[in-house]
Amino acid sequence: MLAANALADRLGVTTPVLLVIEERVRANIARMAAKAAAAGVRLRPHAKTHQSLTVARWCREAGVDSLTVSSLGMAAAFAADGWNDITVAVPFSPREAGAVRELAGRMRLGLLADHPAVAAAAADCGARVWLKIDVGYGRAGVRWDDAPALTALALAVPSPGPAGILTHAGQSYAARGRAEVLAVHAAQSARMAAAHDTVAAALGRPVFVSIGDTPTCRTADAFPGIDELRPGNFVYYDRMQFAAGICGESELAAFVLCPVVGVHDGGRRLVLHAGAVHLSKERDGAGYGCLVEWDDPAPGRLRPDLPLVSLSQELAVVADGDGGTCLRPGDAVLVAPVHSCLAADLLPGGVTSTGRRLASAGLR
Amino acid sequence: MLAANALADRLGVTTPVLLVIEERVRANIARMAAKAAAAGVRLRPHAKTHQSLTVARWCREAGVDSLTVSSLGMAAAFAADGWNDITVAVPFSPREAGAVRELAGRMRLGLLADHPAVAAAAADCGARVWLKIDVGYGRAGVRWDDAPALTALALAVPSPGPAGILTHAGQSYAARGRAEVLAVHAAQSARMAAAHDTVAAALGRPVFVSIGDTPTCRTADAFPGIDELRPGNFVYYDRMQFAAGICGESELAAFVLCPVVGVHDGGRRLVLHAGAVHLSKERDGAGYGCLVEWDDPAPGRLRPDLPLVSLSQELAVVADGDGGTCLRPGDAVLVAPVHSCLAADLLPGGVTSTGRRLASAGLR
Repeated sequence: MLAANALADRLGVTTPVLLVIEERVRANIARMAAKAAAAGVRLRPHAKTHQSLTVARWCREAGVDSLTVSSLGMAAAFAADGWNDITVAVPFSPREAGAVRELAGRMRLGLLADHPAVAAAAADCGARVWLKIDVGYGRAGVRWDDAPALTALALAVPSPGPAGILTHAGQSYAARGRAEVLAVHAAQSARMAAAHDTVAAALGRPVFVSIGDTPTCRTADAFPGIDELRPGNFVYYDRMQFAAGICGESELAAFVLCPVVGVHDGGRRLVLHAGAVHLSKERDGAGYGCLVEWDDPAPGRLRPDLPLVSLSQELAVVADGDGGTCLRPGDAVLVAPVHSCLAADLLPGGVTSTGRRLASAGLR
Repeated sequence: MLAANALADRLGVTTPVLLVIEERVRANIARMAAKAAAAGVRLRPHAKTHQSLTVARWCREAGVDSLTVSSLGMAAAFAADGWNDITVAVPFSPREAGAVRELAGRMRLGLLADHPAVAAAAADCGARVWLKIDVGYGRAGVRWDDAPALTALALAVPSPGPAGILTHAGQSYAARGRAEVLAVHAAQSARMAAAHDTVAAALGRPVFVSIGDTPTCRTADAFPGIDELRPGNFVYYDRMQFAAGICGESELAAFVLCPVVGVHDGGRRLVLHAGAVHLSKERDGAGYGCLVEWDDPAPGRLRPDLPLVSLSQELAVVADGDGGTCLRPGDAVLVAPVHSCLAADLLPGGVTSTGRRLASAGLR
């Protein structure tokens, strides 16, 4: 059913919260860990999706011993919780040299570089330097086929040289369905192999190869030439991944539980206390997310027929074509966010359906 | 010039921060306060834009003695800083009755209602109840011309009855230029007058009338029939307001100061450490914001020719058609955000160009 009032009452929910389905998160982690183990590659999951000490501990319980993060603040927060092998998977920012020196002195800290001077500066701070490769996404990184630039970058890292080469094939998020995702995977595998050969020739030794987007890691079964996977979104997935055919409905593991604060136009327009400051303004073709049924003790069907059609700072409008929901102000409902990473960033921590509060890394 | 390195060095900026231009904020506040005083209406500025104790104090220094906020958490934070007349301008959420009771017992707390049962519940918690009117935005509120529903809502509030009627003509944000905004203002004025007459007839007395969007409050010079203005965005304005012709370039008062972390494709593609978790995914036709020059000690020209064309969780890509910026990794630049309210929510506090840290209300 749509109204999740008993759940909201049990959890004491008065304002929007991130509802995390623990069994689904653990199953998502176990599935990815098993795949990595079967393929003989390291799983270094990206913690930016959840920013949660609790979810990272669930990863550790599944055998994970290294993390990826997207800021030095996150690296410090997870290091304080016992993680000592962390890659910060954004290009090293020279203005953060001081913080890097402090952290690199007490843990195995990896940084990314795509510019020779930046690579040298990162190494000078005591970090392990990964060479960031652009396999077609066109954001950061040196192109896989730019051999002179790759060679210069590899040689800019002082002894013992780079930790490896690393990419994020972000173009996989625009792929639809298994075949398109596998085509991205084939291209990134071939391009990383080419980049590897260039770097290996420059250094006179092979290097470690790391890839890291959820669509290809979830969809592919084989990872020849790859040594490490860094998916992040797979712990929660979201409406975007579901719509793209990457995950099943029963793998969706994070929702926003929020109050209904208005019912208008004969029930055809519902107003939720859930806005851009809770869900983010990430949207897909259908809107800013949709309602989800709650069949205690688990989420039920997604309701794409009840989309969030507009979103202001604190409020969402849900369109109900036939006004049949019978919801009232004071009810609580579940929303499937379009992009779970951004909703989790905005609603730090979260709570499981049994009332367990997740420990946030504390960045917000 | 584009590189704001000396500013970033002086402020010790290593990660994205909200840069607030104090003189501009104070001028924006003074201009709106003078307009309200000349029109004989109360100014109850909306603090959700800045969520800053410091900026609220600047409002107080300009003669403001009441605030609007968008959550009970904000109301509590500003109450703790000495504000004792606050309207929470979102529909009262019955699940927050406990928090309302606690707050209403020690201050003048206004709440909104657009449903008779909700209005009665809000009054029962000790709050002053504003009747929320929909003057055409189509989000929350009772339509201005639905006399039976307005009458029922007005009569649902026990003695001494409603505090007044209140609207947010959010459609003004889609208006372009002075004439279109003034047309929205004329429509909202006429519709609020009609709603007022219906409610006054039901109660046998006139009621207070409150309006509150920045475009009409900034653009209109006369407010006949209006008793209160609740603009919020006017303290900072942003690229959206500037593009719509609401404010001048020299009124833009909040920017995001952030590091450059990549320069690619011969300088035609810049990568900034500034992503969806700093700027929000609010976009306009040109992208997620644009670069701004820094002419110490003040911001210089907006550079719409240097737009943020894509945005991921932590990184932005700036397109530079001719690769002429000569920026390098380690430089710092200013971004004009599309929507300052969301950027300020994501980057709490902020810092002035002279290094004064703004006190956040502490919600993030």
